[in-house]
Amino acid sequence: MSFSPLIRQLIDALRILPGVGQKTAQRMALQLLERDRSGGLRLAQALTRAMEGVGHCKQCHTLSEDELCPQCADPRRDDSLLCVVQGPMDVFAVEQTGFRGRYFVLKGHLSPLDGLGPEAIGIPDLMARIDQGGFSEVILATNPTVEGEATAHYIAQLLMPKGLVVSRIAHGVPLGGELDLVDGGTLAHALAGRKPIHL
Amino acid sequence: MSFSPLIRQLIDALRILPGVGQKTAQRMALQLLERDRSGGLRLAQALTRAMEGVGHCKQCHTLSEDELCPQCADPRRDDSLLCVVQGPMDVFAVEQTGFRGRYFVLKGHLSPLDGLGPEAIGIPDLMARIDQGGFSEVILATNPTVEGEATAHYIAQLLMPKGLVVSRIAHGVPLGGELDLVDGGTLAHALAGRKPIHL
Repeated sequence: MSFSPLIRQLIDALRILPGVGQKTAQRMALQLLERDRSGGLRLAQALTRAMEGVGHCKQCHTLSEDELCPQCADPRRDDSLLCVVQGPMDVFAVEQTGFRGRYFVLKGHLSPLDGLGPEAIGIPDLMARIDQGGFSEVILATNPTVEGEATAHYIAQLLMPKGLVVSRIAHGVPLGGELDLVDGGTLAHALAGRKPIHL
Repeated sequence: MSFSPLIRQLIDALRILPGVGQKTAQRMALQLLERDRSGGLRLAQALTRAMEGVGHCKQCHTLSEDELCPQCADPRRDDSLLCVVQGPMDVFAVEQTGFRGRYFVLKGHLSPLDGLGPEAIGIPDLMARIDQGGFSEVILATNPTVEGEATAHYIAQLLMPKGLVVSRIAHGVPLGGELDLVDGGTLAHALAGRKPIHL
């Protein structure tokens, strides 16, 4: 036993957070109870509001409580560029690079074995969005995994007849780190994608 | 911007959890929103109930929403043994060992530089508890740190005149691991506290 029921329930509830096991949940629960009860109440309120209020942007399908997310609502962005990503977290990652076009957020990647076909991940909605907007280039920024590549390939095939530029983010060695720590597949891509140096 | 206001507020609120930085908070918020909204609402409810409902056990001062915590309320425990610890988490740790005496939970350790004297950490309440109960032994299980040792020493001095057995948990090498990885101070304690082997 050792913890009273309310504390046990809080510890159990905290374990739904990704990466939080029994020990971490205990530390979180006791720290909030001992040091920051008002912070704990603020967190409860933020959770309730977000879980009940957040839906999906009707244009790019990212998570948003408004009809249009901040990216879709912004009139100053480049309407000729569309970046296709696998999830809302990827929008954040691409935003950090300074990209200022539009987005479309898929529901993950194609996974026929799990029953996730084109409809399940929202590819028909992507096609409708592309047909309606005046994009000149679609950048496929799905993950550099087997599933992400397959998803990009599938979308590229659908887009080919439309006469758009369809591009895929570059594969190669990441900045920083050392060459002998890079895996062979990545290095092969980096060699194949080499570029002449213009001084 | 990239996240809508409710999501940003949730990410900020999650950062009050110990060990949760910006990136982890983002992952937690999006995972709850995408995969487990009912879990998120349960967590909000558990937080509200615990933050508003949990107080302190009137006998041992650990966190509890009832007047007496599960340990103090249990009539089958050994009333002659009192274990003094620095916080509610330590009660859980000592319980795991199978200890079935009573507890008293201090509010941390003595720290004169931070203005935490005997009153601030609850030593007068500990003395009152000892005077009222029929304990034959008091086990000082404060942390094996400089501050924890000082706190144990201070309490031991107060208890000496009362004719009780006052003991301190043993210092020595922890189980598992290798001797050459143990620090010198611990090894010195382990040598000084050596015991004859009886076969």
